[in-house]
Amino acid sequence: MKSIPVPARSLSGHFFEDYRPGQRFVHATPRTITQGDVALYQALTGSRSVMHCAEPVAQAVGHPSLPVDDLLVFHIAFGKTVPDISYNAVANLGYADLRFLTPVYIGDTVSCATDIIGVKENSSGKSGNVYVRSVATNQHGVPVLSWIRWVMVNKRDVKSPAPETVIPDLRAFVPPTELRIFARLRADRLRSEDTGSVKRFGDFVVGETIRHPAGMTLDETDHTLATKLYQNTARVHFDARYMAASAFGKRLVYGGHVISLCRALSHDGLENVLSWAAINGGAHRNPTFAGDTLHARTAVLDTWPLDKRVGALRLRMTGFKNHAPDSDAIPPELTVLDLDYTVLMPR
Amino acid sequence: MKSIPVPARSLSGHFFEDYRPGQRFVHATPRTITQGDVALYQALTGSRSVMHCAEPVAQAVGHPSLPVDDLLVFHIAFGKTVPDISYNAVANLGYADLRFLTPVYIGDTVSCATDIIGVKENSSGKSGNVYVRSVATNQHGVPVLSWIRWVMVNKRDVKSPAPETVIPDLRAFVPPTELRIFARLRADRLRSEDTGSVKRFGDFVVGETIRHPAGMTLDETDHTLATKLYQNTARVHFDARYMAASAFGKRLVYGGHVISLCRALSHDGLENVLSWAAINGGAHRNPTFAGDTLHARTAVLDTWPLDKRVGALRLRMTGFKNHAPDSDAIPPELTVLDLDYTVLMPR
Amino acid sequence: MKSIPVPARSLSGHFFEDYRPGQRFVHATPRTITQGDVALYQALTGSRSVMHCAEPVAQAVGHPSLPVDDLLVFHIAFGKTVPDISYNAVANLGYADLRFLTPVYIGDTVSCATDIIGVKENSSGKSGNVYVRSVATNQHGVPVLSWIRWVMVNKRDVKSPAPETVIPDLRAFVPPTELRIFARLRADRLRSEDTGSVKRFGDFVVGETIRHPAGMTLDETDHTLATKLYQNTARVHFDARYMAASAFGKRLVYGGHVISLCRALSHDGLENVLSWAAINGGAHRNPTFAGDTLHARTAVLDTWPLDKRVGALRLRMTGFKNHAPDSDAIPPELTVLDLDYTVLMPR
Repeated sequence: MKSIPVPARSLSGHFFEDYRPGQRFVHATPRTITQGDVALYQALTGSRSVMHCAEPVAQAVGHPSLPVDDLLVFHIAFGKTVPDISYNAVANLGYADLRFLTPVYIGDTVSCATDIIGVKENSSGKSGNVYVRSVATNQHGVPVLSWIRWVMVNKRDVKSPAPETVIPDLRAFVPPTELRIFARLRADRLRSEDTGSVKRFGDFVVGETIRHPAGMTLDETDHTLATKLYQNTARVHFDARYMAASAFGKRLVYGGHVISLCRALSHDGLENVLSWAAINGGAHRNPTFAGDTLHARTAVLDTWPLDKRVGALRLRMTGFKNHAPDSDAIPPELTVLDLDYTVLMPR
Repeated sequence: MKSIPVPARSLSGHFFEDYRPGQRFVHATPRTITQGDVALYQALTGSRSVMHCAEPVAQAVGHPSLPVDDLLVFHIAFGKTVPDISYNAVANLGYADLRFLTPVYIGDTVSCATDIIGVKENSSGKSGNVYVRSVATNQHGVPVLSWIRWVMVNKRDVKSPAPETVIPDLRAFVPPTELRIFARLRADRLRSEDTGSVKRFGDFVVGETIRHPAGMTLDETDHTLATKLYQNTARVHFDARYMAASAFGKRLVYGGHVISLCRALSHDGLENVLSWAAINGGAHRNPTFAGDTLHARTAVLDTWPLDKRVGALRLRMTGFKNHAPDSDAIPPELTVLDLDYTVLMPR
Repeated sequence: MKSIPVPARSLSGHFFEDYRPGQRFVHATPRTITQGDVALYQALTGSRSVMHCAEPVAQAVGHPSLPVDDLLVFHIAFGKTVPDISYNAVANLGYADLRFLTPVYIGDTVSCATDIIGVKENSSGKSGNVYVRSVATNQHGVPVLSWIRWVMVNKRDVKSPAPETVIPDLRAFVPPTELRIFARLRADRLRSEDTGSVKRFGDFVVGETIRHPAGMTLDETDHTLATKLYQNTARVHFDARYMAASAFGKRLVYGGHVISLCRALSHDGLENVLSWAAINGGAHRNPTFAGDTLHARTAVLDTWPLDKRVGALRLRMTGFKNHAPDSDAIPPELTVLDLDYTVLMPR
């Protein structure tokens, strides 16, 4: 990809006409992930994944120390991209081809850079979609996470000419042959008494749906604490005065926090997940606000045996709000999240 | 005690008829306690116990490093028992014979198991009381905490027959001869300038009451963060939509968080407490909700010299809400906590 | 200064007539600062200072490990002074001559002592101003922070005679010749790609004003968590029932939290700040409450080259609330903070 100059950042951030395919943004503020971040993530989400909270269990399956929750790594990396990519975003339209490449451990430092891989002005001429691939690396320069997202960004000047349209190829899902398995993984050593479930890879059936019974009500401080922890500066999450004048009328919950809450709610029934391997695609169907009560449902889309140790499950997680978790149908306007992702599970 | 099979856990949890004396539940999700947990406990409760926040002070009195607050250990251990024991509990009726056995340090990993020691169906036939003893151990298999509690649990099927009634003997208090003192304790090295008080074991008189002046108002995020940190999944604390249909009409604050807040409020006057040694009994007299302002009062029930270094104080902590802390009588309906416990104090 | 006895502390705290110039209060509860404190500070303020969140960057510029944010050290030290100095304060009137002397690292333990340096009874005869200098030291006894503040404190007995008035000399600002620079500092190694800005010492001009565009809405749990983390026990921040009967009608946000939020809001435009060197003076112009949305503006008061590596910028940070951040004038009644401080910046 040819090198295209990156615009200087002003206090008002970038607009649609600042982006051109071929640009690379090296994001500010490398971030060391500490025991404190991990405990906060726990408190903010209610996560019960034993792999991220019990060091002896993590070590038994081959990790040198506690690996950081894949989603916490994602949120921190994502936060770094906001000042350069989505500070003036109107909407975060979607994710694709997200790959968790290498475990991140407490004490590691994550940096992030983003390539602009596509642009398309909207027919209104007031905004456009920007397609980007971001890569997070650890302090050794090893990539730990890579993902595509596309956002709608306002133009600074509606009279600026439309750029040539470039839309990247987006794969429907990360193929099982490309999923990364931690080399030293000893999945056979994960004990059911530590996870609370005997249900492993072979016990999941394509087409099955798990109705997770738990519900969690969100309050303002929950999501603002999480989003500040991730150093995500998007105005829509923090500035209630500004948002009072918006169509929403109030602060929006960061979509990544919704993913984390739904993942925590979906723990029961998926206790033996070793790690997330990919997010194939995802969309925030409706906004989430303080006061909403979230629930989650999981459908098994595909099952792929990978080697003798582990298999991968392609899952569809539906997050919804303010609705009985055990009902058959969920009204579309109460669906907040539709996430297609892949996890590793011991065989 | 004979070994009785434990029922498989479904997503809807266990009900009264699933429990039989002799069953042992080994709880999921061992938990490594980190610096992050300790800082969050500090922020959530306002604790000022120097033994848990000043490493040089802890080391001066014989600890290898900062010991974790006894109540934080309790909440984490308690949280582990919820999915197996009290997921469908109607009420947490009481505690007895809780013993802190060994200090827990930052970096230790706590696991927990519970024996069913009694059952008694209620006269309504709709629910029953389940008596349990839980034991938490560290990563070396050393017991760190043991306690009895009893909870009222709904029946799945009101027509299922009543089990034979078994009620365990409950001791009124842990006798001073059975209190554990940390072997390397150098209580004489606790300096009054570090704790802020010269009042030690010999300065307390049976019958004296301390009216702690501080008050603390609870908000929703306070208690939900704490309860998620402890991985306690009881629905009543998190799901506002579900609770709106209950008699309470709103989320209930986890009773353990109330204990921790009252303990922090009672710090002034009890600054030289070395550790909690036992909880002899306790009850949550009334529910606590977000918006309530808590206060605490302490009565000295007994004073036991244990050795040349330390004595034990048996105390009664009364937690109450929305009432002047300096008034003589507290209306019973505003009392939220009645806790009989024992602390170690330098002589 | 002659040694004057310090009064014994009762549960109701000290009053104006308890203070005499020459007294030294050694405050209780030394505090070890952990990774957990640092993560919480991050989540509570949204700080993006790379020097406090990226260990490799901190090490590149000469630190052995991550230095703790100067303001976090200040809040923890300040909290220690509250029980002895401002428990019965009516108002925190001002700060002066605050100097950051030595970096504090994760794992360090901070203690604090305060000398009474002035008293002046108010004309009403009901209260008086107390002037104090506090010094915080690390576990090696090295001073890390020193500051003067003055508070208005109620009298216990309005009939007690007025003391002789003593008012200390207060310097307008800490002169550049007295600013401390960390000896091993390699400011030249701070990379713009890590901070996100190329704007360094030489790019700032006396008289320039930076209008920081971000806004942050405060909720109750934000400030109460922060204030409990700092073990600050001032009643006005916690007890909503008590405050409902006050002129404010509700809980007051701890002014230090407002400073930290305004500092985080002012990050954009000041990305290359190495550390805070001094607070020359400051006042909380109006109270801040939950629900307020904060903004910050920075004016450059002076620029002092210090050596070949670094220069100092004397800045005036104005914090205001519930008002458009880009408007020309800010109504005085919406100004919450006026802080005159000095930072170090690479040349």
